[in-house]
Amino acid sequence: MTKKPLILVTNDDGIAAPGIIALTEVMQTLGEVVVVAPDSPQSGMGHAITLNSTLHIEKISDYQYSCSGTPADCVKIAVNEILGRRPDLCVSGINHGSNSSINVIYSGTMSAAIEAGIEGIPAIGFSNLNYNWDANFDASKIHVKSIAKNVLEHGLAQGVVLNVNIPNIDKEAIKGVKICRQARGNWKEEFDKRQTPQGKDYYWLSGRFENYDKGEDTDEWALKNGYVSLVPVQFDLTAHHCIQQLNSWIFNA
Amino acid sequence: MTKKPLILVTNDDGIAAPGIIALTEVMQTLGEVVVVAPDSPQSGMGHAITLNSTLHIEKISDYQYSCSGTPADCVKIAVNEILGRRPDLCVSGINHGSNSSINVIYSGTMSAAIEAGIEGIPAIGFSNLNYNWDANFDASKIHVKSIAKNVLEHGLAQGVVLNVNIPNIDKEAIKGVKICRQARGNWKEEFDKRQTPQGKDYYWLSGRFENYDKGEDTDEWALKNGYVSLVPVQFDLTAHHCIQQLNSWIFNA
Repeated sequence: MTKKPLILVTNDDGIAAPGIIALTEVMQTLGEVVVVAPDSPQSGMGHAITLNSTLHIEKISDYQYSCSGTPADCVKIAVNEILGRRPDLCVSGINHGSNSSINVIYSGTMSAAIEAGIEGIPAIGFSNLNYNWDANFDASKIHVKSIAKNVLEHGLAQGVVLNVNIPNIDKEAIKGVKICRQARGNWKEEFDKRQTPQGKDYYWLSGRFENYDKGEDTDEWALKNGYVSLVPVQFDLTAHHCIQQLNSWIFNA
Repeated sequence: MTKKPLILVTNDDGIAAPGIIALTEVMQTLGEVVVVAPDSPQSGMGHAITLNSTLHIEKISDYQYSCSGTPADCVKIAVNEILGRRPDLCVSGINHGSNSSINVIYSGTMSAAIEAGIEGIPAIGFSNLNYNWDANFDASKIHVKSIAKNVLEHGLAQGVVLNVNIPNIDKEAIKGVKICRQARGNWKEEFDKRQTPQGKDYYWLSGRFENYDKGEDTDEWALKNGYVSLVPVQFDLTAHHCIQQLNSWIFNA
C-alpha cells in the first residue's frame, strides 16, 4: 500500500473563507490534508513576509491551523514548524476573484504557491473569477481535482508553479482546461480621494484592469472564452532576452 | 534646450533612510526629482498593495512626500496623484541590504521598480549589501549614476526593469558592472520560537540564504567577486518552456 500524499492547503482570503473550505474538501479525496492559513484576509499582500513582528499560530482542529502572518509566512511556518514531513503538494485558494494576467504579481494566493515552489514543493494557486463570498465552487472543484491529480502524478519542473483561474460560469459551460501564457495587461488606477472629518485628504486605491494583449494563447482569452486557464509561472525573473543588449552599455564612461 | 528628465525616487526602508537620501542626491544631478516614499520601513513587503485601508500622503518639502502605504502604493499614488507628468525614470533604494537572487521576490525595493515597469516607466532598484543604517554609499553613488544615465539614454525593453546590487567593499575595489542572471538560491528558515509572559508560543522568522547555483554568470557570483550585479527582471512570469509539456496532460479523465 502506498502512503497517502501529504497536501498543504493555504490561501489569502483567510481560514474561514468558503474557497478554502471547498479546496480542502477536494484535497481530502486525494490525500492527507493539513490547512495552515491566515487568520484574517490578506488580499493584495503580494509576496510579503513578516520580518518586523512576531508570528502566532492557533490550532483550530486536528488538521487546521490559523496563522497571524501572510500567505508566504503560512507556507514557511507550515513546512518548518507544523508538518512533520515534507508535503507532496501545496495548494492555495480557491481565491475569491481573478489572479490572471498581471494580478499574479499582487496575489497573496499565488505568493503562497510561489513560496512552496521556492522550497521545492509542487504547488498550485487556484482562483475563481467570482469575487463574492457566496460564490458557487461546484465547477471549480471538478477542475481543481483534475489538475491536482495531474500534478501529483507528473510532478512539476523545478522552479515552476501553476496559476489556475476558473471562469464564473456553470460547470456545463466550461469547455476544458487551456495551458496559457500570462496576458499583458495592467490596472489603470483610480484613486478615490476623500476627506477626513477634520478636512484632511486621504485615498482609497481602486481601478480597472485593462488587457492590452490580443493573443489567443493568453489566460485572459481562455477565461473570456469559457476555459479554465492554467499558466506555468516561474520565479527566476531574469529577462534573459535582454542580457546581450545590456552587455553593450558602457558604464562609468 | 531639452527638458530635464523627471525622476521619481522611492524605496522600502522609509523616507528617512540614508539610502534614499544618497539616491536622491545622485538623481538631482541628472534631472528634476520627486521623492514619494513610505513613511515607515516596509522591508519584506514584496509586491503588497493596500486594498483594505486608506492611504495618506504628507508633503515634507517642495519635492518630498511620505505615504502611509507600501512601496508599490507609493509608485501608484505618485504617478496618479502627485506628479504632474509621466516620469522618465523611477529609481528605488538604495536599499540597506541585498536584493540579489531570490530576494527579488520578497523585496519592497524591487516591487516599487516592478510597479513602475508595469506602468511603462523605465525603472531600477538599487541595493547595497551593507545592512547597516550607517552604510557608506560613496561607491554606490558612482555606479547608481552611471547605470541611471545609461537607462535615461538607452531606455529599457518593454516589460523589463533592472535589479542592481552593490557589494559592500571600497569603491576602489569594485571591478565594474556585470550583467547577470538571478542565481538559484533560497532561504533556509530558522524560526525562533519563544514564549509570551503568559506561556503562549510565538515565532520570529529568521534564516540564512543558501546559494545553490555554481554559475559564474549569476548575481551572487558577481557580488562575491567584487562586481556590481545588474539583472534585467521581467514581470511576465510565464514559464514558456513548460507549456509544451503541460499540453500533454489529460484533464478530467
